[in-house]
Amino acid sequence: MNFTELLNNVKATPPLIHNITNYVTVNDCANILLAIGAAPIMADDIEEVEEITTICSALNINIGTLNTRTIKSMIYAGIKSNELNHPVILDPVGAGASKLRTQTTKELLNKINFTVIRGNISEIKTLAMGSNTTLGVDANELDTVTDDNLEETITFLKSYSQKTKSIIAITGAIDIIASEHKAIVVRNGHPEMSKVTGTGCMLSALITALVAANPKDTLHATATAIISMGLCGELGYESVIANNTGNSSYRNYIIDEIYKLTPDSLHKGARYEIR
Amino acid sequence: MNFTELLNNVKATPPLIHNITNYVTVNDCANILLAIGAAPIMADDIEEVEEITTICSALNINIGTLNTRTIKSMIYAGIKSNELNHPVILDPVGAGASKLRTQTTKELLNKINFTVIRGNISEIKTLAMGSNTTLGVDANELDTVTDDNLEETITFLKSYSQKTKSIIAITGAIDIIASEHKAIVVRNGHPEMSKVTGTGCMLSALITALVAANPKDTLHATATAIISMGLCGELGYESVIANNTGNSSYRNYIIDEIYKLTPDSLHKGARYEIR
Amino acid sequence: MNFTELLNNVKATPPLIHNITNYVTVNDCANILLAIGAAPIMADDIEEVEEITTICSALNINIGTLNTRTIKSMIYAGIKSNELNHPVILDPVGAGASKLRTQTTKELLNKINFTVIRGNISEIKTLAMGSNTTLGVDANELDTVTDDNLEETITFLKSYSQKTKSIIAITGAIDIIASEHKAIVVRNGHPEMSKVTGTGCMLSALITALVAANPKDTLHATATAIISMGLCGELGYESVIANNTGNSSYRNYIIDEIYKLTPDSLHKGARYEIR
Repeated sequence: MNFTELLNNVKATPPLIHNITNYVTVNDCANILLAIGAAPIMADDIEEVEEITTICSALNINIGTLNTRTIKSMIYAGIKSNELNHPVILDPVGAGASKLRTQTTKELLNKINFTVIRGNISEIKTLAMGSNTTLGVDANELDTVTDDNLEETITFLKSYSQKTKSIIAITGAIDIIASEHKAIVVRNGHPEMSKVTGTGCMLSALITALVAANPKDTLHATATAIISMGLCGELGYESVIANNTGNSSYRNYIIDEIYKLTPDSLHKGARYEIR
Repeated sequence: MNFTELLNNVKATPPLIHNITNYVTVNDCANILLAIGAAPIMADDIEEVEEITTICSALNINIGTLNTRTIKSMIYAGIKSNELNHPVILDPVGAGASKLRTQTTKELLNKINFTVIRGNISEIKTLAMGSNTTLGVDANELDTVTDDNLEETITFLKSYSQKTKSIIAITGAIDIIASEHKAIVVRNGHPEMSKVTGTGCMLSALITALVAANPKDTLHATATAIISMGLCGELGYESVIANNTGNSSYRNYIIDEIYKLTPDSLHKGARYEIR
Repeated sequence: MNFTELLNNVKATPPLIHNITNYVTVNDCANILLAIGAAPIMADDIEEVEEITTICSALNINIGTLNTRTIKSMIYAGIKSNELNHPVILDPVGAGASKLRTQTTKELLNKINFTVIRGNISEIKTLAMGSNTTLGVDANELDTVTDDNLEETITFLKSYSQKTKSIIAITGAIDIIASEHKAIVVRNGHPEMSKVTGTGCMLSALITALVAANPKDTLHATATAIISMGLCGELGYESVIANNTGNSSYRNYIIDEIYKLTPDSLHKGARYEIR
């Protein structure tokens, strides 16, 4: 992967990213977009989402605190973005945890072509198979991706990518980014990232920025965002230890590391394989 | 109080906490729940709150930025939680500051049995006596609990606990946690905590986690959360001084200290008496 | 400008500030209000905004994530505040980026007398001239205020101030605060502040606090808030360099510096001229 080009394309022409996202982690999503060199705009009223998405380069839909009002806005914005050939990213937070989330995800998938779908393995299984193993917003332990089930998980993700024509990205201890024919397995990250709320949401925002700036190489753009997030999670955790702090400071450190990230440090720290 | 058992029960089986809370401090509430070892989920659409609350261990209702849509969701979720015998916590932010807040609190108290009600003294007086001394979201100075009026305040809180069948917790310079027959007076905390938005909201989230993990000892679980928050406020303030920072960093330090808190440090730092 | 008096008036009688603001940066707005010595309350339901604004000293309206529900609340709260002679501040976030934002701003300006209107130059041009150069929530580069166009910009702002009877404040690399007959040009600040989400929103909250505490000197109160924010941006950036952190920590440092700000340090660091 040409990290230098993929990252530099964000800073060279900062893409404006339209986010319809949850109110829990929205501030961190805005700051991580600024950190990578993009610019955020949050707008969720049905009267303006089509116009706002038109002046943006890409759309990030996150259903973390969905409600009847914003679901409609997601659909309108997504359809408009498709018309304009803008990349659209879906983060199906908690799909499987309630009928509303599962059905909304189904409706979004029916009406919108997503460039990338990123979730934990339980969420993606819910989308693909209608299974209902999601407990809250974290992956069910039974679904955990390990080296033992890696092969079959990759096969599943490639097949789901073929079906949806989307890049499928699952994140956890092992991350996998799959297109129909190719999968990238990423082993960056730190377990304590799960103690920071919104690392998944921030990652989806980051993917949107990378894909917006690299629309012709969406697989590698997605992988670059995921490797960057994982590496910055590792580097940030060194500051937690050095400063004897905790998960709230860790949140700041992760975003700070994205702000300081260079193609060179990404190249040195990246741990991934092509499958 | 057996701090070791009370705290360890949270980490042993991390409870999933359903929060219907305000958009001002929601991110800090999520991070403090993760810090103590619990897991947060925020969901406020009426179509899903009953289902979401069903997969959780406890429900935290905070009216900080209530609106017509979310008030209904609070009621549905609360009634469902009662049916399931899940603990339900109420944080009546600003009760007394507007009719909407006062009446909503009344409606919530009529329809839902709360395990714990936590507020400042002005908010609790509004609930108990319909008095209207609340100015904004902070306690009215006239209501301040001091050693001079401690005895009568305890009597009032025990009596209100008897009436509501809830643990009543008031926090301020002196904190009091009261059941019908027993009160715990806590003297931990730091005055500058009032310069951090959401310390009350975070505390209510923390109480929900402790009570969820210790449903048979809700009085001590509540007191443990309050002592923990106060102690971490003291420890965090040491970092403010050491690093010459201010209230925004202080917010991070408080959550970080909860993340690092051990039963041993809690045992050493706790300052409370039984009344 | 008498910085000592202007700042001390906030701490002497902490004003309660009613904020109807966006959910992206609301937490930072609350913390910066506490940092300067004021107290925040966020309330946006139409059933309570008039009552809440009545117990407050000033109202801060920010349209960053406006929606049909909250637009009505802004209007009700603004009209009530006008009746009570409370200062009302407008932050027209993204005016020009969508019809909804432009029309809402127009409606707000028709129905409410604003004490101060603060935005970037593109937003203020949209309000004054109906031009539509806003791209997202940042100023269009074509509109940038430089020493070359400073004179004409000042003339424009004074004229718009005359028309609206409001103090007009634009912020960017050069900030200008204008009344009908006087303009203050401020050269504090740091370019990297644009990498922190919500510095504009925080500044509008800060202006509201200063104006609430100094209702008879709104021009200088507004300028004091803007100089304070710029200076704290400079001081906070020194911590970014010293600690080798990034934009998320920078957010904390800026608020921390407001918390630590003294009239003396403001006097020493202020860089402004009267025009």
